[in-house]
Amino acid sequence: MGEKIVIVGGVAAGPKAACHAKRLMPQAEFTIIDQDSLISYGGCGIPYYVSGDVADEDELRKTSFHMTRNEPFFADAKGVTAMTSTRALSIDRKEKCVHVQNVQTGDKQAVPYDKLVIATGSQPFVLPIPGNDLPGVYTISDLHKAIDIKSQLATGKIGTAVVIGGGAIGLEMAEAFADLWGCETSVVEFMPQLLPRIIDSWFSVMLQKHMEEMGVNIYCGEGASEIKAGENGHAAQVVTPNRTIDCDIVVMATGVRPRAQLAEEAGLQVSPFGIVVNDRLQTSDPNIYAAGDCIEVTHIVSGQKFMAPLGSLANREGRIVGDNLAGIPTTYPGAMGSFIMKAFERSIGATGLCLESAKAAGFDADAAITAPSDRAHFFPTETKIPLQMVFDRRTRRVLGVQGFGPMNDAILARIDAAAALIAKGGTIDDFSLCEMAYAPPFATALDALNAAANVADNMQMNRQRNVSIPDFMAWMADFSSQPDWLALDIRHPKEVKPFKEKFAEAWSELEYKEIRAKYAELPKDKTLLIICDAGTRSYEVQIFLDSVGITNTRVLGGGFNLMTRMEPEWWPEK
Amino acid sequence: MGEKIVIVGGVAAGPKAACHAKRLMPQAEFTIIDQDSLISYGGCGIPYYVSGDVADEDELRKTSFHMTRNEPFFADAKGVTAMTSTRALSIDRKEKCVHVQNVQTGDKQAVPYDKLVIATGSQPFVLPIPGNDLPGVYTISDLHKAIDIKSQLATGKIGTAVVIGGGAIGLEMAEAFADLWGCETSVVEFMPQLLPRIIDSWFSVMLQKHMEEMGVNIYCGEGASEIKAGENGHAAQVVTPNRTIDCDIVVMATGVRPRAQLAEEAGLQVSPFGIVVNDRLQTSDPNIYAAGDCIEVTHIVSGQKFMAPLGSLANREGRIVGDNLAGIPTTYPGAMGSFIMKAFERSIGATGLCLESAKAAGFDADAAITAPSDRAHFFPTETKIPLQMVFDRRTRRVLGVQGFGPMNDAILARIDAAAALIAKGGTIDDFSLCEMAYAPPFATALDALNAAANVADNMQMNRQRNVSIPDFMAWMADFSSQPDWLALDIRHPKEVKPFKEKFAEAWSELEYKEIRAKYAELPKDKTLLIICDAGTRSYEVQIFLDSVGITNTRVLGGGFNLMTRMEPEWWPEK
Repeated sequence: MGEKIVIVGGVAAGPKAACHAKRLMPQAEFTIIDQDSLISYGGCGIPYYVSGDVADEDELRKTSFHMTRNEPFFADAKGVTAMTSTRALSIDRKEKCVHVQNVQTGDKQAVPYDKLVIATGSQPFVLPIPGNDLPGVYTISDLHKAIDIKSQLATGKIGTAVVIGGGAIGLEMAEAFADLWGCETSVVEFMPQLLPRIIDSWFSVMLQKHMEEMGVNIYCGEGASEIKAGENGHAAQVVTPNRTIDCDIVVMATGVRPRAQLAEEAGLQVSPFGIVVNDRLQTSDPNIYAAGDCIEVTHIVSGQKFMAPLGSLANREGRIVGDNLAGIPTTYPGAMGSFIMKAFERSIGATGLCLESAKAAGFDADAAITAPSDRAHFFPTETKIPLQMVFDRRTRRVLGVQGFGPMNDAILARIDAAAALIAKGGTIDDFSLCEMAYAPPFATALDALNAAANVADNMQMNRQRNVSIPDFMAWMADFSSQPDWLALDIRHPKEVKPFKEKFAEAWSELEYKEIRAKYAELPKDKTLLIICDAGTRSYEVQIFLDSVGITNTRVLGGGFNLMTRMEPEWWPEK
Repeated sequence: MGEKIVIVGGVAAGPKAACHAKRLMPQAEFTIIDQDSLISYGGCGIPYYVSGDVADEDELRKTSFHMTRNEPFFADAKGVTAMTSTRALSIDRKEKCVHVQNVQTGDKQAVPYDKLVIATGSQPFVLPIPGNDLPGVYTISDLHKAIDIKSQLATGKIGTAVVIGGGAIGLEMAEAFADLWGCETSVVEFMPQLLPRIIDSWFSVMLQKHMEEMGVNIYCGEGASEIKAGENGHAAQVVTPNRTIDCDIVVMATGVRPRAQLAEEAGLQVSPFGIVVNDRLQTSDPNIYAAGDCIEVTHIVSGQKFMAPLGSLANREGRIVGDNLAGIPTTYPGAMGSFIMKAFERSIGATGLCLESAKAAGFDADAAITAPSDRAHFFPTETKIPLQMVFDRRTRRVLGVQGFGPMNDAILARIDAAAALIAKGGTIDDFSLCEMAYAPPFATALDALNAAANVADNMQMNRQRNVSIPDFMAWMADFSSQPDWLALDIRHPKEVKPFKEKFAEAWSELEYKEIRAKYAELPKDKTLLIICDAGTRSYEVQIFLDSVGITNTRVLGGGFNLMTRMEPEWWPEK
C-alpha cells in the first residue's frame, strides 16, 4: 500500500487536508484522529444553531448535499478512515507514530505515520476567576455544549444570560439569546470597546448602540471578577467592579488559545501564537505539517506573527497542506483576518489592520472615514454605510478597511474587494481605480470603496485635514477643552437649527452653497470644524477656504451620518 | 485670472473632471458646455425612474444631500460655470476656442480655452430599418425621452411594449415596463443570446428563463426588420423574420456609438471605438483631454481597444482628467467592463472576459463552472449561485468571472472581489487564497469565489475534465449524436429516478457514497458523463475513477443546479 498519512484533529483543517490529499494521492492511507465523537462540523454555525436559525445540530454536520459527515461518510465517500472518540496522547517522532487512546474503552494503540498533520485547533481561554467552573458556565468550543445550551433554552430554563467577552463569538451568542429566545442578555467586556483590535472604537460604538437598541445590555471596560453560585449551586451572578448581574447561564467567550501541547511535547517549535510553520505549513519537523487554529500565522499587512483562529483560514490551510503532502509546492502567504459579523439588523466587517493596530505596528497610519451610500442615492433601498480606509501616509499602501451597514451583503462586497486588493499590496490609487460593478440597485457610479480611496488620496496629499473622532468627541463633551474651536455647520439651515440652539457660541453655520458668496463673514481667530452629513461637502469647503487663505479648518470625516449611529449623549434630538 | 478650462459635455465625466480640477486649481476658470437643458443626471437610473422605483425625474439630478445639480448649483457650490442649451459646433485648435451656439436663441460665440476636455458621451445606435423614426419609437438617451415615456405609462397609454436589443439597458427597460406597469413586454435580440459578449450563453439562458417566468417575451436570434405604423401614424408593430409583435411603444436599445464627431472634425485622432487618448487621457492634441463614453479604452485583460460606455468609468476617467489638468500625473490603466444588473428577482454580473470573448482574444481559455452556496448551506437564506471563472490554461491567470443569483448583493460581492484581483493580474492561486470575509450569514468557509478557483486549479492541472455545456445540451437533445456517452448520475436514488425513467439507456446511476464499493460494475466501453448537483462530488468521483483506471469520464460543471436554472426542454419535472 501507499504512504500512511495521519491527521490529528477532525473539525475543519484536518478533514480538508485529508480529503484533498486523498484525491491527489489515492494510493495513500489517511487516518483522522479526533477525541470527540462528532467531527467535521461547522463550528461557526453554533450561534445560529443556538438562536434557532438552524433547527437541528445535525445540519451543522451535513454537507450541502445533505449527507452527515460521520465515520461511514468519510470511509465510503472520501476513502478516509476517521477514528473518533480517540485522543492523541503523544507523538513519537523517532518511531513515526502517534500514541492514542480510545476515550470510551481506554484502549491504547500506536498509529504509525509517514507524514503527520496536526490540526488540533484551539481551546477557549477560561478566565481565572472564582466560579469559572460552576455548572451553568459554558464556553463555545464544541457541539455538545451547544446542544446542552439549546435544550435548556428550549425547555424555558434560561431567562437571563451573561456573555463574558465582546468579541465576535460573544456578540453572536448574545444575539442568539436575545433575539429569538427573548432572554435578558448582558455582555461584559474587559476592554473599553467591543471587538477590540479588530475595529476602531467609533465602529465599536455604532455596533454597541445598535445592539443596545435591540435590547442587549453592554458593559465595556468592566472585567468579570467573579461568578457566584445560586442556591442550586449553578452560576447565578456575574460580578464586575461596577455591578452584579443576575443570570441563568454564563457564556465565557474570552478568546481562544492554540491547542499546541501535543506539538510542544513532541519537541516541535511552538510560539505563544501557536505551532511554528514555514510557508508550506511544515513544522520544525519536515514530516509533520500543521494547519488551522493551532498554528502561528504571518499577518499579510504587518508582517507580524499572530493567531488567526478562523474557519475560513482553517479550510484554506488544510488544502495547502493537502497539496504539499502530494508534492505540489503550494505556499501560504499568511492571513489578514478578514472578518464579517451579523448583529441583529446590521452587519459589520473588517479586513487588514484597524487604525489603532496599524499605528501599533509602526505604520504612519491615517484613516479616511466616510459615510457613503451603499447604492444609488435615488434607489429606494439605499442606505448610508460608514466605511473607513486605513492607509500608510508614507507609501500610500492601503492597510485595512472597516464597514458598518444594514444586514445584507453590502458590507461584505466592500470588505471582500478590499481584502483582494490589500493582499496584492494595493495602494490608494489601486482602490481609487478598482472597477467595481455598477448599477443603481447595487452601488454608486463611484463605488463607496472608490470614494473612500479618493478621500484617502485627498488626505495623503494634505488637501483634506480631519479632526479625529476622539478629539471631536472630547470637545463636544467639554467645549472649554479647546476654546478656540468652532463648529462650522454647512448643512441645510433646518438641519443646523437644533444644534445652533443647543450649542450656541460653539456652533456657527454657513450653508454649503453660499460658501463662495459669504466666506468673508467667517471668524478668522477660530479653528473651524467643518461639519456636513458625510464629510464630502466639508472637504470641498475646506479646500475652497484654503484657496482664500482660511486654512485653520478641520473636516469631520464621515460627518453626522457617523454621529447619528454613535448616538452621543449630546445629540440634540435624543 | 487663472487658466481657462472648457469642458464640452455635462452629464458624468465632464462635471466630474470640472469639479475635481476646480478643487485642485481654484484660480482656474471652468466652463461646462452642454446642448441639453438638463445636465449632470444619473442616466443609469432612467429604467428605475420609468419603472416607478424612482418617483420623480428630479431625483436623478439631485446630489445625495438633495440639491439639484443645475446651473446655480454649479456656480454657487462648485465655482463652475455651466452653459446649458449650448451646442459646441466646432473646435478651433489654432485659436484655442470652441465655437458654440445657443440652441434656443441661435446666438453664436467663441469660448476660449487654455485646456479643453471633451466629454461628449455616446449616442444610441439607431437600427437602419423602415419605421425607425416613427412617433412612439424611443432610444434611452436623455431624461426628456424618459419623462415622455413615463408620462405615457402613467396616463395608461402603453399596454404593450417591444424592446429591440437584449443588452443591459434593453433588459432593464423591459423590466420597467413589465414589473410595475404590467405591460405585455417583448424583447427582440438579433444575436442568439441576451447580453452577447458580456456573459456566456448558459448564463444568458438562466437570465432569459427567469425573465420569461416573470412574464417578458424574449426572442433571441431575431433581428427587427421593420417597425410598422398604426392608423394614428404611431409605431404599432415590430416585425422580425419569425413574427409580428403588436405594441404601443418601441424602445430601441441596440447599443451606443461614441459621440466623437466634434473631435474628429477638429482633426483629433479617432478610432471606431472613440476618441484616441493616451494613458493620461490626453487626445492627440496635448491641450485637449477626453473622458467618458466618447473615448477608446484599453481592456485590462485582453489589451485590446474597446468601447466601455459605463457611468462608473466615466466618473473615474473624469477624476483622472481633473488630476492631469492640475498637473498631477495620474494614469488610467484601462477597464474591464465590470457589470451587474437587476432582473426582477435575480441579479447577474460579470467582470473581465467571458469564455467566448477570451477565446476570441486568443487566450487558451477554459471555464470553471460551479454552482456553490452563497452563504453557509445551513443558514436559512442560503441559495445556490452559479459562478464561473474563466482562466488561461497557459498562465493560470484569471480572465473573468460571471455570476447569477438572487436579487441581493451576493453576486456583487464576488464580482467586485474578482475585479479587484483580475486588475492586479490575479492568478488561480491568488483567487484560491483570497481571504474573503466569513460568517455563516454571509458566505461559506471557503467562499464561492475561492471554491471556483479550486475547480479552476483542478482543471488546469488536468485533474478535472469537463464536458462543455453546449456539448452536453446537444447530446441531451439527441443521444445518437454521441452514441458512446452515458450519464452517470451519482445523486440520491430519489433524485435520479425521473431521469432514469425518462432517459433509459442513456442514464446510469451509482450513488456518490457507494462509488468506492461498486465502481467495478460500471461499463468500460462508455464515456461517462458524471452528474451531481453542483459538480463537486462529480469531480471527486472522476478523480477516484482515474485512480482505478476508469479514465473515460467527463464532469458536468455546475451540475444540475445549473440545469434547473436553464430549464431545458428535456427536464423531466417540467
